[in-house]
Amino acid sequence: MRTLAGVGSTPRAGVGTARWYRPEADLSLPDRPDAVDADAELDRYEAARDAAREALRDARDRTAERVGEKEAAVFEAHEGFLDDPTIVEDVAAAIREGTPAEHAVADRFDEAVAQFEGMEGRMAERADDLRDVRDRLLRALLAGDGEASTATDLAALPDGTILLAERLTPSDTAALDPDAVAGITTVEGGRTSHAAIIARSLAVPAVVGVGDALESIGDGETVLVDGEAGEVVVDPDEARRESVRESGHEVIPERVETVDGRSVEVAANVGGEAELAPAAERGADGIGLFRTEFLFVDREAPPSEDEQYAAVTTALSAFPDDRVVVRTLDVGGDKPVPYLDLPEEPNPFLGRRGIRLSLDEHADLFETQLRALLRAAATEDGDGLAVMFPLVTRVEEVERAVDAVESVADDLAAEGVDHAVPELGAMVETPAAAFLADALAERLDFLSVGTNDLAGYVMAADRGNDAVADYHDPLHPAVMRALDRTTAAAEGSDAWVGMCGEMAGDPALTELLVGLGFDELSMSAVTVPEVKARVREVDADAAASLANEALACETRGEVLDVLEIGERDA
Amino acid sequence: MRTLAGVGSTPRAGVGTARWYRPEADLSLPDRPDAVDADAELDRYEAARDAAREALRDARDRTAERVGEKEAAVFEAHEGFLDDPTIVEDVAAAIREGTPAEHAVADRFDEAVAQFEGMEGRMAERADDLRDVRDRLLRALLAGDGEASTATDLAALPDGTILLAERLTPSDTAALDPDAVAGITTVEGGRTSHAAIIARSLAVPAVVGVGDALESIGDGETVLVDGEAGEVVVDPDEARRESVRESGHEVIPERVETVDGRSVEVAANVGGEAELAPAAERGADGIGLFRTEFLFVDREAPPSEDEQYAAVTTALSAFPDDRVVVRTLDVGGDKPVPYLDLPEEPNPFLGRRGIRLSLDEHADLFETQLRALLRAAATEDGDGLAVMFPLVTRVEEVERAVDAVESVADDLAAEGVDHAVPELGAMVETPAAAFLADALAERLDFLSVGTNDLAGYVMAADRGNDAVADYHDPLHPAVMRALDRTTAAAEGSDAWVGMCGEMAGDPALTELLVGLGFDELSMSAVTVPEVKARVREVDADAAASLANEALACETRGEVLDVLEIGERDA
Repeated sequence: MRTLAGVGSTPRAGVGTARWYRPEADLSLPDRPDAVDADAELDRYEAARDAAREALRDARDRTAERVGEKEAAVFEAHEGFLDDPTIVEDVAAAIREGTPAEHAVADRFDEAVAQFEGMEGRMAERADDLRDVRDRLLRALLAGDGEASTATDLAALPDGTILLAERLTPSDTAALDPDAVAGITTVEGGRTSHAAIIARSLAVPAVVGVGDALESIGDGETVLVDGEAGEVVVDPDEARRESVRESGHEVIPERVETVDGRSVEVAANVGGEAELAPAAERGADGIGLFRTEFLFVDREAPPSEDEQYAAVTTALSAFPDDRVVVRTLDVGGDKPVPYLDLPEEPNPFLGRRGIRLSLDEHADLFETQLRALLRAAATEDGDGLAVMFPLVTRVEEVERAVDAVESVADDLAAEGVDHAVPELGAMVETPAAAFLADALAERLDFLSVGTNDLAGYVMAADRGNDAVADYHDPLHPAVMRALDRTTAAAEGSDAWVGMCGEMAGDPALTELLVGLGFDELSMSAVTVPEVKARVREVDADAAASLANEALACETRGEVLDVLEIGERDA
Repeated sequence: MRTLAGVGSTPRAGVGTARWYRPEADLSLPDRPDAVDADAELDRYEAARDAAREALRDARDRTAERVGEKEAAVFEAHEGFLDDPTIVEDVAAAIREGTPAEHAVADRFDEAVAQFEGMEGRMAERADDLRDVRDRLLRALLAGDGEASTATDLAALPDGTILLAERLTPSDTAALDPDAVAGITTVEGGRTSHAAIIARSLAVPAVVGVGDALESIGDGETVLVDGEAGEVVVDPDEARRESVRESGHEVIPERVETVDGRSVEVAANVGGEAELAPAAERGADGIGLFRTEFLFVDREAPPSEDEQYAAVTTALSAFPDDRVVVRTLDVGGDKPVPYLDLPEEPNPFLGRRGIRLSLDEHADLFETQLRALLRAAATEDGDGLAVMFPLVTRVEEVERAVDAVESVADDLAAEGVDHAVPELGAMVETPAAAFLADALAERLDFLSVGTNDLAGYVMAADRGNDAVADYHDPLHPAVMRALDRTTAAAEGSDAWVGMCGEMAGDPALTELLVGLGFDELSMSAVTVPEVKARVREVDADAAASLANEALACETRGEVLDVLEIGERDA
């Protein structure tokens, strides 16, 4: 047994058979010929770009379906590199001067990679993206027929594979069959690289950044990847393998309650119809966050009322006895919805987005969405429908949104269309909403805390900016106090309070969240079984004491101590 | 007497003699000649750009000195338009094809103006900036000798001028002598145009957006501009003129207290040495915010310790018996400090800035600044020095900053250099700092609330983004609650609590702020006399009741009602 240390990316462990993935080996360039036909080479370059573009769009769609729209966005960035006018022009110029297409592509991209590698933080990780685009182009060129071949069929690995690589590109990771791969480990890469993020969303155990020591592992060896400990264990002993088996969590299909009988709903966050079945299979008590953006992005016009109605009724049918919380459209200037014609903003996270757009510029889209929702609420499984509004910062916004719902109900009644008014709620994802939680709870059926954005606004730290990654953690005392302000304010009301940020899916925090008074926790489907098991171990009174202790802390370190969890990445 | 309605920009009134400013009239282009010497025209264009660039830099420096660095930044944007590669290239191409330089400039800029005018919100206001740059170039070209002439000498208007114009560019406004101009009123322009903002900072009464009705006023008529009511009154009667005289506020050099004896410090915000004398003349009780950015911007290397020491001791000498609160360097990725080499960030307001940079990447600059401050604290007037840290979101940051101060004190002691440790405080400008105010107050001598940024973060609304201007107002209940959380948390401690955001300078809010428990209010020097007079009228108990009423409000409209102030721009 030999243990290598790395950076745990997905906090799960898996054991299997090592298999190296070395895509670079397949991309060695032929010698430069003395003379080339520049026109023919330009044609080859164009054909390779077309093939790469098609492959990128496939990868985008596959990732959007398997993982989510947000994670799929990287492939749009790749398409940007593919069509970058400076790069395209430089490559074409080199070809016109007699360089073969492969060499022209490799030279120019290597230059760009070197530039990005010289930068810091997130920019440096763009180097991975550039390599990915370069390799796609080279594969297409070397395949010779304009088709993009993949070096190794990552989608068809044998069951129980532990995949080892120098690095994995986001495309590689997205191509993986998560059921076949028992784990991933790489020489390079940080916890916040796109590949690590996608691996996490697919719930594939992963340890990245192991360094050159990883090369000591040969194909066929038995390897354990422990993403929680950040360790790669070669030839693990029985005790260590046992620990992996124990970490698997059985699906608990029924509702759960604490040892002293307080019921806590454990629901799933869903970003598209493809995620409904996996959520049901893992025993989710309904959907705590049904994002509707997948209906709106990557198209030329907004979805029709009927299309939205169909999507929502599909979600309701997947959870006939449970609640399905649909969030109304939540986009802003930084999201790719071209027909909304949103202006670029210097700080899009602080701009016109969420409910702000629905109440003003895009009241028409909002009305259509509400019509679809109110109609869906009147269907057989429609009892469970709940609707929530994103980015609320003012009581007036909720009043106007409720007015809009009532006005749509009146219209539908006048038209003689079946409809019902579902439960209505607000996201608590701004400090303003936390400060106003009492007033919001009075006017609504529920509140749902989005911890990712809330932590970002409370701490004044963009969660997309790795340079301030230290600040995003919801365990910072200021964020904890904002959570407490929310649950405490709602306590005197009839409204229930849920959480649909990533924090909700961390089993190490389940007791804390129960103690803070959350009635519902919604998360990636993969962690539902573990959190359900954890709820059953919690004593609600002890949890409340724990929460009080945590709220008295003044630093994140003190909070970690109270929760008895070690230092970890934010 | 005839009254025209517009948008009040500076909430002050002034009366004087109308004088139209029509710069466009001076910029009529000569007829196009049949043939031009393209090379000579290109030289003229280059010379005009050089002259315009020099004039822009002068305007920048003048504005930075008179108004502030933030307001001066617009001239850097202008320089960007002047050197915009697309525009420069298009103009040069037109000249090479035989167009005279004036026409080439006018054509290309008019095209760009039309593009921006087709956009919404803040982008549309960039059209004013483009016109400004165009007119500078045209003036330089039409002057014929490569010197930038100004159409009308706005810096030499007779005393008591009410300036009327179609629109004013930021350059026009910055050139004005605020002592000579009794008021400004324009046909076009919104309250948030750069020109309106600069007029406000110079405390010149202004009403913008009056529309074509303004053209009915002729040169020489007596006009009253009431920026509070948003009215332009032609030939005002004696009663109306009297109201202006009454609105003038006498300087109150001594400290003030409420009718029941609670003392409230009324200090000035200062952004450069030139603002020290005006602040003292208006009776400020010291400086509540001494911004140090002016020492760092527009240069190739950071200022030396001695240079910073000199600037701080100058400020201390200007207020020998008062407190001078110096904020340590507060920059981020959106500020022009090239030698700091800060990366561009997608949401710079949520990025690496303020104390975050001082504790990490730029610990060296922080150390130098602290050395200068600790040395200044040991000088004759150094007793009044206080130092505060910007963008605090974590208790650990304060602990590390205090450690840095102690370590600098140790170094200075070891070197045998005279020094003293000043009062230390933190800006409360993030929701995190408001939530942690108790923990911060325990560790520091004071807190100072920056309402502009605090409102932005609480409401998730970039205050530089006009599209979300409705959200910036500190009278939104969520922001009021954040203020209350701060003052209430500090009440049990020895720390004093001040406010240095724009809210502090609004006399309509003085009673509220006293009621919320602020010990100090710091503002633009121009409003110090009025706020001091207001403090003397406040009853602290009644103010506390008023504050409680306001805190119970759930909408901004209710807050306005409680404060008995009418609807107003955020």
